[in-house]
Amino acid sequence: MSDYGISKKVGLEYDEAVARVRESLATEGFGVLTEIDVKTTLKKKLDKDFKRYIILGACNPPYAYKALTSENDIGLLLPCNVIVYENEGGGSTVCVIDPVIAMNMVDNPALGQVATEIKQKLLNVLDLI
Amino acid sequence: MSDYGISKKVGLEYDEAVARVRESLATEGFGVLTEIDVKTTLKKKLDKDFKRYIILGACNPPYAYKALTSENDIGLLLPCNVIVYENEGGGSTVCVIDPVIAMNMVDNPALGQVATEIKQKLLNVLDLI
Repeated sequence: MSDYGISKKVGLEYDEAVARVRESLATEGFGVLTEIDVKTTLKKKLDKDFKRYIILGACNPPYAYKALTSENDIGLLLPCNVIVYENEGGGSTVCVIDPVIAMNMVDNPALGQVATEIKQKLLNVLDLI
Repeated sequence: MSDYGISKKVGLEYDEAVARVRESLATEGFGVLTEIDVKTTLKKKLDKDFKRYIILGACNPPYAYKALTSENDIGLLLPCNVIVYENEGGGSTVCVIDPVIAMNMVDNPALGQVATEIKQKLLNVLDLI
């Protein structure tokens, strides 16, 4: 487990895990603004084989607005990434960025509260899966 | 100027600045895999007015592949964000994430070289604008 992310292994197969992550994000007020299918992208751009792996860019608009009005350049760290990948031997891993660790890069106390609240929402997402 | 990003003010108007950033990213081997029009998104989701501001998710595939094979969860920090926004009074600001600072969150020396080389490429992008 990385120190910049919080992960959960689930018994769900990849496609089902991705679908559940999308539902759970919506329940917690996150829209998915971006997505990168890593396996497809690496195959297309480099002809490399890679496991099934998706990067979802999740955004909770009221919190994003608070962050952007507190710290103009915070778009460099938005949206919050959530990754899902297949595990060897079955099942999947879901991993969310830890926004408290990520926002530590930024010297702006106004972001601390936003990061703490968003972290709780992302932990709720993991609990829902 | 934020310590997690490197920014450059340019005389170009917003649309032209965004176009030049896309060209410069391509010159340095980056594809734009994601984009978020912040102004449009905040208007649509929250009915809030915001300046013109875009978040481009830039990816240099060979470096992304190196990063992903060195550190499985690094997708949490990909792609590299480049933001462009309009300045009050004219002109625009282009700001790129500092991947060396961002990768400092990750306790994996193999990423250090990738981050240093990608940082140089992103600095080249700023020079080209």
